Amino acid sequence: MGLVTPFLQLSFLLAVILLAAKLAGYLAVRLHQPSVLGEMLAGILLGPSLLNLLHLPLIDDAALAETVSQLGQVGVLLLLFLAGLELHIADLRRSLRASALAGTLGAVLSILLGGATGLYFGLGPLPALFLGLTLGASSVSISAQTLLELKSLKSRVGLSLLGAAVFDDVLVIFLLSAFFALTSSSAGWANLLLVFGRMGLFFALALAFGLWLLPWLVKWVRNLPVSQGVLTLAIVVALGYALAAELLGGMAAITGAFLAGLMFARSPEKETLEPRLHALAYGFFVPIFFVNIGLSVDLFSLGGNLELALLVIFSALIGKLAGAGLGGRLAGLTWRESLQLGVGMVPRAEVSLIAGSAGVAAGLLGAREFSALVAMVLACTLAAPPLLRLLFHAPARPVVLNQSKQE
Amino acid sequence: MGLVTPFLQLSFLLAVILLAAKLAGYLAVRLHQPSVLGEMLAGILLGPSLLNLLHLPLIDDAALAETVSQLGQVGVLLLLFLAGLELHIADLRRSLRASALAGTLGAVLSILLGGATGLYFGLGPLPALFLGLTLGASSVSISAQTLLELKSLKSRVGLSLLGAAVFDDVLVIFLLSAFFALTSSSAGWANLLLVFGRMGLFFALALAFGLWLLPWLVKWVRNLPVSQGVLTLAIVVALGYALAAELLGGMAAITGAFLAGLMFARSPEKETLEPRLHALAYGFFVPIFFVNIGLSVDLFSLGGNLELALLVIFSALIGKLAGAGLGGRLAGLTWRESLQLGVGMVPRAEVSLIAGSAGVAAGLLGAREFSALVAMVLACTLAAPPLLRLLFHAPARPVVLNQSKQE
Repeated sequence: MGLVTPFLQLSFLLAVILLAAKLAGYLAVRLHQPSVLGEMLAGILLGPSLLNLLHLPLIDDAALAETVSQLGQVGVLLLLFLAGLELHIADLRRSLRASALAGTLGAVLSILLGGATGLYFGLGPLPALFLGLTLGASSVSISAQTLLELKSLKSRVGLSLLGAAVFDDVLVIFLLSAFFALTSSSAGWANLLLVFGRMGLFFALALAFGLWLLPWLVKWVRNLPVSQGVLTLAIVVALGYALAAELLGGMAAITGAFLAGLMFARSPEKETLEPRLHALAYGFFVPIFFVNIGLSVDLFSLGGNLELALLVIFSALIGKLAGAGLGGRLAGLTWRESLQLGVGMVPRAEVSLIAGSAGVAAGLLGAREFSALVAMVLACTLAAPPLLRLLFHAPARPVVLNQSKQE
Repeated sequence: MGLVTPFLQLSFLLAVILLAAKLAGYLAVRLHQPSVLGEMLAGILLGPSLLNLLHLPLIDDAALAETVSQLGQVGVLLLLFLAGLELHIADLRRSLRASALAGTLGAVLSILLGGATGLYFGLGPLPALFLGLTLGASSVSISAQTLLELKSLKSRVGLSLLGAAVFDDVLVIFLLSAFFALTSSSAGWANLLLVFGRMGLFFALALAFGLWLLPWLVKWVRNLPVSQGVLTLAIVVALGYALAAELLGGMAAITGAFLAGLMFARSPEKETLEPRLHALAYGFFVPIFFVNIGLSVDLFSLGGNLELALLVIFSALIGKLAGAGLGGRLAGLTWRESLQLGVGMVPRAEVSLIAGSAGVAAGLLGAREFSALVAMVLACTLAAPPLLRLLFHAPARPVVLNQSKQE
């Protein structure tokens, strides 16, 4: 039993990743930054830019890196589920106008600026439009985590942010699907209807299950002699909604997980569920997600097309800052709140990268555009937490989320 | 974005496995059986015997099966860590004599009978001894759960049972580790000193760290503004002890995890740690472990060696009934109590299966021996609860372990 088995390799990686995440998160908080920033930077230090953890002599194994990545993806599902769990639909409804306007305008302006950037750098109209589309969708997991740490997720800004994220996910994925349907298929308009129909079907089924069947299920399971029954039910439902969002609705898995959390938020079991899920998420899976973001970044490969990268980053930043900010202002937020909302919408992640890869595969984008997208994701993701920290009046010595639960 | 990515495949597998585990566990409890039996049976139904979940058309992927298996292995580390964490050493000290005698004699007689069975069926001396070793250790969780259901865990028999289960776990894991250390080395007996030196070094370092450094670490971390800091520390320490047990001590990873739990049991943070770890373990990882055991069983391969299976089952039953029963009687229990103790020691689970898998991997056992072990685990787990109910004056409707934690 002295062999270095795959499980021992995984155990070693997990121990290092978890330790690094919590240490770096602690240092970040000491430096008055959100812990999520420290966790991502720890990942960059452990990644190919410095230590190259996933490619150490005894560790180098693609399957292992994939396993770590998948554990992180479970983490982001739990993160969005928790974000949904801590909301009331009534809260979201109050910020519906701000969500719709900020989500739509932030996506539209990002698309337009990205498209203009593409044209300026010599892309044709369709590739330029596609480059714009890749900048459209925010990924709010990082902002949501930051606002949680700043105890502002349930503020008007936080609620608008979560709602706007759903709006722009739906909008941008609809536009991306429409783009492919109209440009690659002879039966374009029929496909467009299909895309729309799938989204509608997913939302209808998700709501029907969540509003009618789920309350009964939770009530049944909570009285069963099953260890951690409600917790496991929540995990299964989160996974199920994530699967349905992608496979049925054609949307992002995290949108499904967020919806699942919203549905559970209506249950009286929410109070006992939340601390258990929090332990599962923040004790194990979520730190792996944030470290893994950094692990996949090679800083040395980002230098090549500085001008394009800078303009793409500029488009992505201004698109959300001005677009989502304007949307918030039109919906009645103060200027300061609108700016906070705009900054919160800045981070991009999986939708940009997945769409970018699809664009490369379809011959719409080249390697230099994709590199610029990666640099943009990195810059936007790293910029948001400290900017948010600056814009909120945080206490001098930050009080961290759930410290009370920790004690 | 409608592609079936590896993560979607994993999400689907996890949702099905968790749902099946809890449903089957519930049905088992309804039928007055330990839930762990239901979870393993669910795995068998999902496995190659019936549904062949891991080899469905869109799922078939060795890396995915490996990921599920590794999640299960994390589960068994958490299970053993929790077993260590929940030990009350003062309680156990009162029944020390009965525990030591019953644990030792039950393990020794099982090993001898199992070894004789192996020899009778034509195995060489070493494989036969190894087959015996796989029958040695009772399952702490199944014994405790059975006794809790009978409201007899605090009786003289119950405390002796808990202590004896620990004794035979430690004894058998020690013997298994020594077996591998001595047989995998070409220098054989000459390396005995090195083997015991490594074990000694591991135990010395594990105790030194656990007794001196760990209390200070826990105290430091609990006051840090880090979300779920103590929980993550516990996971990292469990992984670290597991790694050290294998790589430094040449022993089983679960020995390390169990020791790590024992070390944390001394901390005042134990009270807040236990429910979080319980959520992590029983809400996610542990059910995956038990279902995954079943997933690797092909029932159609069990039928061919009925005689071997029956003799292994007979050895396992008589080994504990007579061995542990005699130990209890020698320590001053009544004949009736000794019989109860012997029956309580009959259930086998993870240690037998893990050792069995390791034996298959090392070429000591073949598929027919492993199938016989699985049949033995099923039979012993199934036989013990009704026998115990017969020997104790049991209430009509069982109260289930951890129901209080569920509420």
